[in-house]
Amino acid sequence: MLPFAKATRALVRRLGPALVDTSEEGRWAASFDSSKLSFLPEAVIMPRRHEDIGPVLELANAQGVPVTVRGRGTTLMGSAAPIAGGWVIDMLRLNKVRIDAEAGMAHVQAGAVNAQVQRAAAAAGWFYPPDPASKAYCTIGGNIACNAGGMHGGKYGVTRDFVIALSGYLPTGEWVQWGVATRKFSAGFNLRDLWIGSEGMLGVVTDAVLRLVPAPAARWTLLTAFASEVEAVEAVRALFREVRVQPAICEFLDRDSVHCAERATGRPVFVGQRDRAVVLFELAGSASEVREESKKLLAWAKTHAVAQRVAKNREEAEQLWEVRRKCSGAMFELGDSKLNEDIVVPMRAYSRFMRFLAQLKKSSRLHIPTFGHLADGNLHVNIMFNREDADQARRAEAAVERLMRKVVELGGAISGEHGIGLAKTPFLRIQHSPAQVRAMQAVKAALDPRGILNPGKMFDVFEVWKQEKLNLKLPWDHK
Amino acid sequence: MLPFAKATRALVRRLGPALVDTSEEGRWAASFDSSKLSFLPEAVIMPRRHEDIGPVLELANAQGVPVTVRGRGTTLMGSAAPIAGGWVIDMLRLNKVRIDAEAGMAHVQAGAVNAQVQRAAAAAGWFYPPDPASKAYCTIGGNIACNAGGMHGGKYGVTRDFVIALSGYLPTGEWVQWGVATRKFSAGFNLRDLWIGSEGMLGVVTDAVLRLVPAPAARWTLLTAFASEVEAVEAVRALFREVRVQPAICEFLDRDSVHCAERATGRPVFVGQRDRAVVLFELAGSASEVREESKKLLAWAKTHAVAQRVAKNREEAEQLWEVRRKCSGAMFELGDSKLNEDIVVPMRAYSRFMRFLAQLKKSSRLHIPTFGHLADGNLHVNIMFNREDADQARRAEAAVERLMRKVVELGGAISGEHGIGLAKTPFLRIQHSPAQVRAMQAVKAALDPRGILNPGKMFDVFEVWKQEKLNLKLPWDHK
Repeated sequence: MLPFAKATRALVRRLGPALVDTSEEGRWAASFDSSKLSFLPEAVIMPRRHEDIGPVLELANAQGVPVTVRGRGTTLMGSAAPIAGGWVIDMLRLNKVRIDAEAGMAHVQAGAVNAQVQRAAAAAGWFYPPDPASKAYCTIGGNIACNAGGMHGGKYGVTRDFVIALSGYLPTGEWVQWGVATRKFSAGFNLRDLWIGSEGMLGVVTDAVLRLVPAPAARWTLLTAFASEVEAVEAVRALFREVRVQPAICEFLDRDSVHCAERATGRPVFVGQRDRAVVLFELAGSASEVREESKKLLAWAKTHAVAQRVAKNREEAEQLWEVRRKCSGAMFELGDSKLNEDIVVPMRAYSRFMRFLAQLKKSSRLHIPTFGHLADGNLHVNIMFNREDADQARRAEAAVERLMRKVVELGGAISGEHGIGLAKTPFLRIQHSPAQVRAMQAVKAALDPRGILNPGKMFDVFEVWKQEKLNLKLPWDHK
Repeated sequence: MLPFAKATRALVRRLGPALVDTSEEGRWAASFDSSKLSFLPEAVIMPRRHEDIGPVLELANAQGVPVTVRGRGTTLMGSAAPIAGGWVIDMLRLNKVRIDAEAGMAHVQAGAVNAQVQRAAAAAGWFYPPDPASKAYCTIGGNIACNAGGMHGGKYGVTRDFVIALSGYLPTGEWVQWGVATRKFSAGFNLRDLWIGSEGMLGVVTDAVLRLVPAPAARWTLLTAFASEVEAVEAVRALFREVRVQPAICEFLDRDSVHCAERATGRPVFVGQRDRAVVLFELAGSASEVREESKKLLAWAKTHAVAQRVAKNREEAEQLWEVRRKCSGAMFELGDSKLNEDIVVPMRAYSRFMRFLAQLKKSSRLHIPTFGHLADGNLHVNIMFNREDADQARRAEAAVERLMRKVVELGGAISGEHGIGLAKTPFLRIQHSPAQVRAMQAVKAALDPRGILNPGKMFDVFEVWKQEKLNLKLPWDHK
């Protein structure tokens, strides 16, 4: 007997069977996200209008039914895994997008896909910069839940920097609106931003107003090579310190990541240059702005890099991008399992961090190809191992913990854009003091006193290592 | 006998008399802010190091002593008035500013003055855009408390958009840190942003890391005139819709505001042009960007405005700025009292709002000169009246309430940059539903269970009309 069977029957009566899926297949499909940890819910609700959500929460709150909200489920952290069972609300039907071309805003429903918003904005001459790697799949609601970032973060910012207003539901089922469709709002506590990054634990976002920026008229792409990771990051620091150019994209790949890409393509990234760390730049803006900045950037490259290549057109730019696009999937040659840790380190600590990484690779005897966004310090540290090899798995586990302690010691963050979910719960208290965690938990208890929204996440330590993972390939998985 | 005399004696014992002022003059000086509503505290604490604040709050929390934190007290809303007595913490000694020129960040203490941060940033080639009218006096801590904006909001954003990390104290006296000095952070609930705009009711900010942007190399100033307010705002809407230029500043003045400035200077703003609404533009960016945008903006002005003047240099720009700088002080010719209401309306409602304003001026029989930031819809509606004239005062009171209902009806906000404090408490529930207010109050109770931080603000309706105001001139008062 399922623990919430009675509440589920009441739910079906209230919403009708067209909105509530209690089939085995439907429940299984909603039982996991990209973390591939599966926990069966008792029902999946697929609202057609945001108003369908109020009654679901009202009932869940009255009966104490756990409710997990999901978009496309691309999160690697387990934030959308319904660990306590109960009900899942699937937002994919709520996917409307409307561009206000005059005000430069997008009015979107939570189930709209990030790339869909980007396309709609572009069609109206605007640009929506946040671009998680999964942007062709992931939803704006999910982006808001984990304050997603992407490659444009350094110049433009992350999801939080583009949210103007949110509306949705409190766990009680009451509809609320945080902010209005204007750039300024200073009336009452800022619960809009409290919802952002709260991983669906404080309320259910159904609609968002997003800020857009004028579409950049021009882009310019440059790939640069360096003899070592430390030389690469020190050169980039000099760029930021002395040249004051703000690249839209500034992607770093360490030598291990470059090797992965080279193995995948069968070609060297720079002919005649072996064993190089690379930094890929993209400038974006008006034609004159890009022209001005590209001169400065090229002058910097000529004095700091061992090699550089400028793309003459978009086709050549795509070729320069290949090393970045190919490296991530190719890492699975180094192990069947990847821990993609989206840590952040402050600029002043880049070199220290690179030396630490070299040491971590050595001491863990694991491949740890690392790439990421040098304009904002958000690096993806990919700890590769073979899951069946218990010794490798143990070393990977130990390496993650050392990594997390190091980034906090360096004044950085354990997550820049993925959030905590289940996977990072063992590290939350490395980042946050007991007083900080208590304050967060007090806020949770205040807004969700029965604890129905996404229980088990963030604060409870989840031992992901002891869990069985599903062995399946999702559409957005590499390779 | 003062209600917290015993706690105050314990405070003096704990901190020493050098940090605690219990003199009559000291208490009086901390008894009011720019709202000029005076409530005597029992002691004023002037911390020298942020660590002095923990014990104050610990003691206050244990004894239930109200604590109000103040910077320079420039707020017009009464947010810094210690309405419940108790203790005031004066942050002005905590005023260090350090620029990280490489990362583009300012590390500042809460008592640092906004203009001080702007100057330090400029000296390092960076720019801190938030610029409240009181920027020569107001502190960063106060800016954070009310999420202050200013004229650069449309292009660059408000204080919230520039805060990277905060640290300070919970009402219990525990030190906490929300975020680190990196552009990305997605680890745990976002209490940083919850603190921003919370008017000192949820915690005490002592330190902030602020984001800077590259200092614009060039500026370009244009003044344009229009036959009416509706023509001005419709022309600006066309600019945003069709030309897609992002002016750094886009200041609107209605005809009444222009008349005020003209009376003050004794000169017409545009020779040969009488009775005009004006819009003042400033472009900012790289030389080439400004050149490109200025061409587009001038072409727009020639087809939309009845007159325009371009500044050839900074001196001429200062002349164009005169109308904006002089109008506000000159308004006191129209009445001895001003209600400066920083409402926000969405762009699509600009014309409807202008027609409403014309009607409000007529029906209230009051002067209501209005100016403000057209790029973000944040308008300053200045309701002028003579305080001694009971009938005028009543009409002003009624006009404010009609105004607030109208802006919310139009999808706008009752405050864009001032906050709620005491003065806007009668209108909070026009903006926010009962569920929204309950959620905010639940958050307050969770983080400050004894209610010691800035009690009486935001949620309790304060009848400002029934209060005596101090009759004095503050350094930042106009005229």
